[in-house]
Amino acid sequence: MLFTAKGAVNWRVKDLMFFEGSEKKVEVVVAENAPSLRSLGQPFWEKMVATCNATILSNISNDKCDAYLLSESSLFVWEHHFVMLTCGTTTLVESVKTFMDIFEKDQILSVIFQRKNEYQSHLQKSSFAEDISSLQKRMSGVAYQLGNLDTHHNYIYHLDKPYVPDDNDYTYELLMYHIQGPVANYLRSEGQDAQTIRTLMNFEDILPGFEINDFVFEPFGYSMNALKDGFYATMHITPQEESSYVSFETNLDLTPTNCEIFNKLISILQPSSFDIISFNGIPNVDAKNHLLMNQIEEPLSCGYTMRFYEYMQTQENPLRAHKLK
Amino acid sequence: MLFTAKGAVNWRVKDLMFFEGSEKKVEVVVAENAPSLRSLGQPFWEKMVATCNATILSNISNDKCDAYLLSESSLFVWEHHFVMLTCGTTTLVESVKTFMDIFEKDQILSVIFQRKNEYQSHLQKSSFAEDISSLQKRMSGVAYQLGNLDTHHNYIYHLDKPYVPDDNDYTYELLMYHIQGPVANYLRSEGQDAQTIRTLMNFEDILPGFEINDFVFEPFGYSMNALKDGFYATMHITPQEESSYVSFETNLDLTPTNCEIFNKLISILQPSSFDIISFNGIPNVDAKNHLLMNQIEEPLSCGYTMRFYEYMQTQENPLRAHKLK
Repeated sequence: MLFTAKGAVNWRVKDLMFFEGSEKKVEVVVAENAPSLRSLGQPFWEKMVATCNATILSNISNDKCDAYLLSESSLFVWEHHFVMLTCGTTTLVESVKTFMDIFEKDQILSVIFQRKNEYQSHLQKSSFAEDISSLQKRMSGVAYQLGNLDTHHNYIYHLDKPYVPDDNDYTYELLMYHIQGPVANYLRSEGQDAQTIRTLMNFEDILPGFEINDFVFEPFGYSMNALKDGFYATMHITPQEESSYVSFETNLDLTPTNCEIFNKLISILQPSSFDIISFNGIPNVDAKNHLLMNQIEEPLSCGYTMRFYEYMQTQENPLRAHKLK
Repeated sequence: MLFTAKGAVNWRVKDLMFFEGSEKKVEVVVAENAPSLRSLGQPFWEKMVATCNATILSNISNDKCDAYLLSESSLFVWEHHFVMLTCGTTTLVESVKTFMDIFEKDQILSVIFQRKNEYQSHLQKSSFAEDISSLQKRMSGVAYQLGNLDTHHNYIYHLDKPYVPDDNDYTYELLMYHIQGPVANYLRSEGQDAQTIRTLMNFEDILPGFEINDFVFEPFGYSMNALKDGFYATMHITPQEESSYVSFETNLDLTPTNCEIFNKLISILQPSSFDIISFNGIPNVDAKNHLLMNQIEEPLSCGYTMRFYEYMQTQENPLRAHKLK
């Protein structure tokens, strides 16, 4: 099935198509005495998703979680919390406000809103500063920037309220830039199919027992949600040569395996740089081809320690410039 | 003398003042049979500079060149060419058009327009794509991006017309990020004076025999123009802690001395990363504390070979995040 990505930022200077995977993410936890989020039903989530100009493409479910695949985005809903990732020019903050409207203030235990670095911020409908000003009218939060402005960084805004995450509450995010090699070439080619991408990514090996729901975009681009019990994984690929970007995220605890999933993805996609962001887990990748350029560790008042690591390769020989026009 | 920087991009989230030294630059060469640019006189240049919302603060001159210090910007005018650098939200492209209005098309031999990476491009009055669309209505040019979008890069647009630069026609630009150490601390302090900055920068040593014209901004920030015969050097400092940036540029040939001036400035300002851009010269810095992360070499159809080098330090120990709110 083919579909044109809607949320994407396209910037065309004659032959160059620039596509920025400008991701935003929100994770919200509500109290045990609040209504079950799953029982709100698909019509509610359709409306919430529409608020930020995304649409639901398909969904999978198990006992613990409903996973919706959106236009270049994902939504995971458990009984008392949800995670939503969007990209392109979506206005995720509007969805957050739509969600908060139906709950009492004291039923909201945790809100974490993230936004990654953007390089064409003039193409976005709002800035991070505007997003947090808007959220700040509904709640009292704090905001941080992890990483320097002139290179990779991640913005976070969270509700400034004590919260105690479960012992097994981890999040690991892997953001890969400038993918290279045969798999990257396939992802940039026409006429892809989902099964080939699943095989190339080796999902059977890295996500054993997970149910997979995925989508191939036109002319290229790929999104994947995976579920197994209460665990999720999600992957979004924007393979365009000059600005390729792949994100992978999971709530599996990767510590015992030294981030084996991340190591495998890095080896398959050969990014020239990548970032790892974690909440509570301590990532330990085997980055033999990359240098750790920057690392940030910030204990947050909402109960998580957030970590940010930026890895890069050196460029041994001079490259040519990108011709724009 | 104190003056508030006008061209700067300020982004305030409560206590964080973000200042982006978003530089733009243009260099134009006119034919020998065109009117002398110096004879156009200061009123003409005042008007041209006003077109992009800058003002002339002061000037120095010698037999070869008039050097104007602008609000966070610089303008150097020789008989048949000029160089103008602006920063902040100035619309340099409007000044270029104002200049071109008074010349016949065949009197314009070379136009090179550069724009550095921006991280808050939504605060700019125009994008690079818009700039080149606007210039393209007046001339036929080509555009390149040197460096990747997600880290340091430089955009260039130039008139696509054969031009043969003189053998001694070099330009070297040094762009330093995240300056550290005692001189950086002084530059961020209140009550600075120009003489102390000249001494700390060791201008007597690195620019011997140059006449210096400089300016200290309020609450901080520093601009300097230097002239000696047909040679210029210019420096602009935006020292704000979270986004510090210092640019230095000269048309001296740095090759025979292995970029000794750059080595000394890097050692004084201790940037955690820096870029070098050159036209025709091959920079050879002694970057013992930095890694060469990226290098680009592009022969341009306007007769110059443009080179771009990105140097970074690794971050050995985790840092804390920047608190924004």
